[in-house]
Amino acid sequence: MMKMKIGLLGFGVVGQGVWQLLEMNEQEMLTHAGVQVEVLKILVSDVHKDRILSSDNPLYTTQWKDIVYHNDIQTVVELMGGINPAYQCIKEALKSGKNVVTANKALLAQHGVELTKLAEEHKVQLRYEASVAGGIPVLQAIRDSLSANVINSIIGIVNGTTNYILTRMTQEGSTFEDALQAAQEQGYAEADPTADIEGFDAAHKLTLLASLGFKTEVSFQKVYREGIDKISPLDIEYAKELGYVIKLLAIARCLNGRIEMRVHPTMIPAGHPLAAVNDAYNAVYVKGNAVGELMFYGKGAGALPTASAVMGDVINVARHQQQVNAPTCPLHYQPSGKEVQAMDQTSTAFYIRLLVKDIPGVLGRIATTFGGCGVSLSSVIQKGETEPVSLVFVTHKTRELALRQAVKDILHMDELVEVASVIRVEELS
Amino acid sequence: MMKMKIGLLGFGVVGQGVWQLLEMNEQEMLTHAGVQVEVLKILVSDVHKDRILSSDNPLYTTQWKDIVYHNDIQTVVELMGGINPAYQCIKEALKSGKNVVTANKALLAQHGVELTKLAEEHKVQLRYEASVAGGIPVLQAIRDSLSANVINSIIGIVNGTTNYILTRMTQEGSTFEDALQAAQEQGYAEADPTADIEGFDAAHKLTLLASLGFKTEVSFQKVYREGIDKISPLDIEYAKELGYVIKLLAIARCLNGRIEMRVHPTMIPAGHPLAAVNDAYNAVYVKGNAVGELMFYGKGAGALPTASAVMGDVINVARHQQQVNAPTCPLHYQPSGKEVQAMDQTSTAFYIRLLVKDIPGVLGRIATTFGGCGVSLSSVIQKGETEPVSLVFVTHKTRELALRQAVKDILHMDELVEVASVIRVEELS
Repeated sequence: MMKMKIGLLGFGVVGQGVWQLLEMNEQEMLTHAGVQVEVLKILVSDVHKDRILSSDNPLYTTQWKDIVYHNDIQTVVELMGGINPAYQCIKEALKSGKNVVTANKALLAQHGVELTKLAEEHKVQLRYEASVAGGIPVLQAIRDSLSANVINSIIGIVNGTTNYILTRMTQEGSTFEDALQAAQEQGYAEADPTADIEGFDAAHKLTLLASLGFKTEVSFQKVYREGIDKISPLDIEYAKELGYVIKLLAIARCLNGRIEMRVHPTMIPAGHPLAAVNDAYNAVYVKGNAVGELMFYGKGAGALPTASAVMGDVINVARHQQQVNAPTCPLHYQPSGKEVQAMDQTSTAFYIRLLVKDIPGVLGRIATTFGGCGVSLSSVIQKGETEPVSLVFVTHKTRELALRQAVKDILHMDELVEVASVIRVEELS
Repeated sequence: MMKMKIGLLGFGVVGQGVWQLLEMNEQEMLTHAGVQVEVLKILVSDVHKDRILSSDNPLYTTQWKDIVYHNDIQTVVELMGGINPAYQCIKEALKSGKNVVTANKALLAQHGVELTKLAEEHKVQLRYEASVAGGIPVLQAIRDSLSANVINSIIGIVNGTTNYILTRMTQEGSTFEDALQAAQEQGYAEADPTADIEGFDAAHKLTLLASLGFKTEVSFQKVYREGIDKISPLDIEYAKELGYVIKLLAIARCLNGRIEMRVHPTMIPAGHPLAAVNDAYNAVYVKGNAVGELMFYGKGAGALPTASAVMGDVINVARHQQQVNAPTCPLHYQPSGKEVQAMDQTSTAFYIRLLVKDIPGVLGRIATTFGGCGVSLSSVIQKGETEPVSLVFVTHKTRELALRQAVKDILHMDELVEVASVIRVEELS
């Protein structure tokens, strides 16, 4: 039996989930994983807040140094979120020879290279399974089980909030605003939903997935990012008509040594397994050159699912403590990085919805404009009896640069009322 | 960099897949996993068979002792399949202090307890990720990433052959016989398909999943097993009408300390993620008391996907070699086993299709018979203008014993022509 003494930095939803999980499964972890976990200290900013432990609990401290420099704590579990003071706390903990388990994707996406290097230097472990897709053990799979593969692509629905909103819009025909409000009422969206809606959260997770999958240092700043706030019920409807479903995808591909990283709303075939990932569920689709296509599906957030990943890491820290060649979870690599493909050089198909004046020959002139830019069309839908007329185009796979030029040319046409939407289409085959 | 010298017992589809994978990804494994794998010997029964290596390759041997007792081989990779001589080879290898990696589910389902105990005694590793669901890293997830959970249930589509056949029947309306033939032509089914069709293969895999998930010794003999050969296109059609899809499920549940293990064709809701697992794909659905529902999806067979899991294990053996507390993959547990629920005590809903004579009151009398046995009905479909009339019943969840009694009583009714099918229904909620 191994003992693991931990300190919790943060005691919000996930922190209390960890506590609850320890109470619930203490015996299971002891008997089967062979690890006895004991919480020695808990950092809170205000002891009087309503939590599952009473405010006079002796474990509480309001000073992070009480945990990070504690003599008996072996593993610091960081669940504060945000960059500061989490960044400083983790650095100090690693330097003090403590292992660190964290769920902080924003921090790792920005400082992960430095932090995993620091962990290696101090011969301690830094684990972060909970930072991507909550309870789904996808990082361990990529890092460990799939290590005989060259990973070709990783495509994820990794943000529960936006997936919940898009599911409501698809299943009930809601507007984005109504679906967002429903998400907030259900506790699936924050009061300020920017990080989720605009794809920052998904981009943080994609940074980690791409780095682990392609074994390269990845800069979060190089992830192309587009949110879901411009998706209209009309686009959802046209998608259905065309056999697609709209999802916010986080896409990382490695092609000819260059990597592509982008987060944007995407039309995908309605029959693809990712299309069936609904509500607040997450899924990550991984393609390896030997294993082929794999999908990992489950709850990407929530107190207990996230705590499951956090405690899985704590148990793994314990199990690997005496190991000479402990498998680490590096985000730093030599040589330091693969080149990131510029967004205008990527190729996808596109859905374009235009509103135009009802003038004879307008469809022909627009189609000619696409053709003039080298963009070839795979389907066209014309609808609407009164002006403005809706024209929907789906292109074949095309260079983003060519599509942008075509849209620019169309914007100059007198017949155009509005470029209502441009959404990328991925066949995922 | 670590070196790992291996010997291959068997050089069929998977064995040659391993060789191919080593050629393809040698650099990747060396650079990123830090492991250099070298094949020292390959056991074949006949060197002249047509394979990717020519018959005079010096690695070939026809004597398993050349591998199992080889001084320099550190890990024996068993890919022969079948019980003998694989059983003896693995025992001897473990006793000689060699690590063993195997994909042999039949062997592990029957002798896994003894073999993992033997590995522990001789302080070597026995790994077998490829034995369940091919390339999908589900065993590692259950054993390792989910170790902070109590696993409540594991439900899998773990046999590609039967899933391919059921998919053809569902999508094209084929008969079982035609779909089986198509599977054989595509290389998805063996010339003698018994092990797949009758659920033996799925039952072997379920034995391993249940043992790892519930941390208990499990006897393969106690798995209830029913094949798919009696499923008719008519049942597939009725399933559709009722909102279900028919899959061969391997189900393991732990309820009040007792475990349920059964493999049988099952109607599941068409909207459930498992219902979308088609063709030769596999998927395993795991429910943990913290993580909630997870699904792992991918290719359950094939040379490279299986080789991906085998080589992942070999790399893990190398990484954990110098570890004092190497995480083992035990199938032996103390206390030795949880009680297995008798099949007639399990509860599911049922679909029953009867052919009856067109006599006034027949529906009423049959419904009364169900009621008399305590089986309550949730839906009834009556169809057919000419005799015999089709009567389809779906029951609420009921004890298997009660359902069997009802069917027995119905078999005695004069109006009955035939009990055409009885298929379990799982709502999976």
